[in-house]
Amino acid sequence: MASIFTKIINREIPSHIIAEDDEFIAILDAFPLVEGHVLVIPKKEINNAFDLDDDLLSKWMLFAKPIAKAIQKSLPCKRCGVAIIGLEVPHAHMHLVPLQTAQDINFTNKTIEVPDSRQEQIAQFLKTNLK
Amino acid sequence: MASIFTKIINREIPSHIIAEDDEFIAILDAFPLVEGHVLVIPKKEINNAFDLDDDLLSKWMLFAKPIAKAIQKSLPCKRCGVAIIGLEVPHAHMHLVPLQTAQDINFTNKTIEVPDSRQEQIAQFLKTNLK
Repeated sequence: MASIFTKIINREIPSHIIAEDDEFIAILDAFPLVEGHVLVIPKKEINNAFDLDDDLLSKWMLFAKPIAKAIQKSLPCKRCGVAIIGLEVPHAHMHLVPLQTAQDINFTNKTIEVPDSRQEQIAQFLKTNLK
Repeated sequence: MASIFTKIINREIPSHIIAEDDEFIAILDAFPLVEGHVLVIPKKEINNAFDLDDDLLSKWMLFAKPIAKAIQKSLPCKRCGVAIIGLEVPHAHMHLVPLQTAQDINFTNKTIEVPDSRQEQIAQFLKTNLK
């Protein structure tokens, strides 16, 4: 059974896509901790991030780099934080979160509700700042 | 002025070293969230992780991979989590944290006190499981 991320990659579930290549996709988290919370997902459906092969594992951070820089340019934050947790969806994913404080990347927080029109606006900011 | 991590790399401040090569060092965090909390640090003193050059950024995860696997073997956990926050020490560092729940990698938690003899024991477990 395909993971929710594979369904997003296959366009079976809609999402706000920030960037994509043959191996990775970056989308806005539909359940964000803060505005501008992005997921960077290897398309290969591997449960534990550290079971990714070396090639994908090393490319992951390089794929994330310009997106993290776009987050730093687009959202009010001190910097872009990174987290890989993976206790919920069994398909490895990296969180990129604009941080004012460490509280912004606390996964025990309640997620925030962002209207779809605002998500689309944030996605456009990020894509513009990727260029 | 050298960062605290550069002082650790230069052996001016003691630490429990797990692994080291020319470009990276992995040590037990002296202020751990849980037992077995490791920091993986590029020796080059760069403040923001995403300002590391592509070569170091991609090698960082590869250097962390066997350490994360050693954590998963050595400590009671569901998996090894990853975080890059960087709001406190201006020298990029990656946290590797054995996770039972997302609460274990909540940086607003109070850190735990682990006696030095226990830290040394954990370091030995990790080094044995790196082999």
